[in-house]
Amino acid sequence: MSQETVNKQGLLYEGKAKKIYTTSDEQLLWVEYKDDATAFNGEKKGTIQGKGRFNNLISAALFTHLTQAGVANHFERLLSEHEQLVRKVRIVPVEVVVRNLAAGSMAKRLGLEEGWELPRPVLEFYYKDDQLGDPLIIEDHIDVLGLASPEQVEQMKTVALKVNQLLSRYFAGRDIILVDFKLEFGLTDDGQLLLADEISPDTCRLWDRHTRDKLDKDRFRRDLGGVEEAYQEILKRVGGEAHV
Amino acid sequence: MSQETVNKQGLLYEGKAKKIYTTSDEQLLWVEYKDDATAFNGEKKGTIQGKGRFNNLISAALFTHLTQAGVANHFERLLSEHEQLVRKVRIVPVEVVVRNLAAGSMAKRLGLEEGWELPRPVLEFYYKDDQLGDPLIIEDHIDVLGLASPEQVEQMKTVALKVNQLLSRYFAGRDIILVDFKLEFGLTDDGQLLLADEISPDTCRLWDRHTRDKLDKDRFRRDLGGVEEAYQEILKRVGGEAHV
Repeated sequence: MSQETVNKQGLLYEGKAKKIYTTSDEQLLWVEYKDDATAFNGEKKGTIQGKGRFNNLISAALFTHLTQAGVANHFERLLSEHEQLVRKVRIVPVEVVVRNLAAGSMAKRLGLEEGWELPRPVLEFYYKDDQLGDPLIIEDHIDVLGLASPEQVEQMKTVALKVNQLLSRYFAGRDIILVDFKLEFGLTDDGQLLLADEISPDTCRLWDRHTRDKLDKDRFRRDLGGVEEAYQEILKRVGGEAHV
Repeated sequence: MSQETVNKQGLLYEGKAKKIYTTSDEQLLWVEYKDDATAFNGEKKGTIQGKGRFNNLISAALFTHLTQAGVANHFERLLSEHEQLVRKVRIVPVEVVVRNLAAGSMAKRLGLEEGWELPRPVLEFYYKDDQLGDPLIIEDHIDVLGLASPEQVEQMKTVALKVNQLLSRYFAGRDIILVDFKLEFGLTDDGQLLLADEISPDTCRLWDRHTRDKLDKDRFRRDLGGVEEAYQEILKRVGGEAHV
C-alpha cells in the first residue's frame, strides 16, 4: 500500500453519510464520514453520536479483512478517526443485498417472521434510485436498463456470496450473527470492478449470537435506544480502534 | 379431445372472476366466468358488461392456438358462452409476467415511460398472495419459500417465453401489440406442469397497433371508458365467437 502524502482537494460529493473529496492523486478519493443518520430513504432523520467515527473505523477493519482474503476493493487506508482514503470508482447503480436470516424488507415482502433462518443465502438486487425508493429489481431489469453488463452481474454475485462467507465466519468468531448486508460496487477508470462504499452497522444487520440483541442501525430505525452503545460494541468486537 | 358427457358437481372455489366446480370426471373442472371486475388487488370493484363471456371465449381461442402450437395446457373445451372444461391442477403460487413494452408496475418501479420498447422480453415472477399484494419476487425467493422447484422455474420460464413468441405473432397478425401478460401454471396429480388459468384482456395488455388504443383491463383500471367495446373488439379479432 502506497503511503506517499496525498492532499485533500475540493468537495466532490456530499451524501447522507459522507463527504467525498478529490485528492492530489486523481485515482484516490478522500472520504469523511458524517455523524448524521437517516433511515427509510431519508424520511427519518437524527444524529447518532459518533456514528461517523464508528462506521469509518468498522468499515476500515472489515475491508482490511476482505483485502487479506483476496477480495478486490476500493479501500486504501485510514487517514483519521473520521476519514479514509479509497480508490476512485464510478458506483454501479445497483445495491447487492445478501441475506442469511429473514429480516427487514424481505420479511415484510414475503410475510416471513424476522429471524427465520433461510435454507441458503438469498441474493437480491435493488435499483439505487432515491426517487424510486430503491426498488427490488431482477437481473432482466438490470440488463434492459443497462445498469451493468451480464458479466458484471455475475461477478457481483460471486463476490457478494464470497464476502458473505468471509464475513459470516469473521463475525461468528466475534459472537455476532451476520443477518444480512448491502454491498455496492464501482468501476475504476480502466474498467476493474471493485467492492466499494462501506460495510458497517449502517449497511449490515448484526445480532449478538447469545442475546440476539440488534447491534446495528435497526436500533435507530425502530427507536430501540442504545444506538451508540451498539455501534461501540461492534467497533470493540472488530478491534477497529487499533487500526488508527 | 374427449367429448364424453361430463356432469357439473359441487362448487369447489369461487374467486374474483370465476366459479370452479368439480365434475363427474375427477381430473376435470368446470369453470364459470363471472362478470364482476376488480382491479388493484380488489380495491376497485365494478362490473364490465359481459366480461365473463368475453374472457371465456377469448381465453378458449388463445389456449386452442397454444395447444395447436404444442404448449401443454389445462384447456379441454368450451361448454357455453360463460363456461369451459379444464384439467384439474394445483396452481403454483407464482405469477409469471412477460413484458415486451414497459407498462404498469414495471414502468412505475423503474421510472420508465409507458410504451418504451424493451430491448428484449423481460420475465418477472410475482408471489401470488393477496394479503402481501402479489409482490415481485426473485428466483431465490421462490426457492427458499419452496413455491416451485428450480426445474419447474426453468420450465415456466421456457414456456412463458415461447408463449410470448407465439402470442406476439398471433396478435400482430390481428393488428394488436402484446405489451405484456401474466401466466399461471399448475401441477396435475401426476406432477405434470401445465399452463393454466386464463389468457384474456384481464391478464394481458393489448394495444391497437395503429392507434395504440388500450384494448384491455387498463380501460377499467384507469376509468378510460369503452371497456366493453374493447373486450368485444379483442373477441372479434381473435374470432372467439366462432368457437362456441
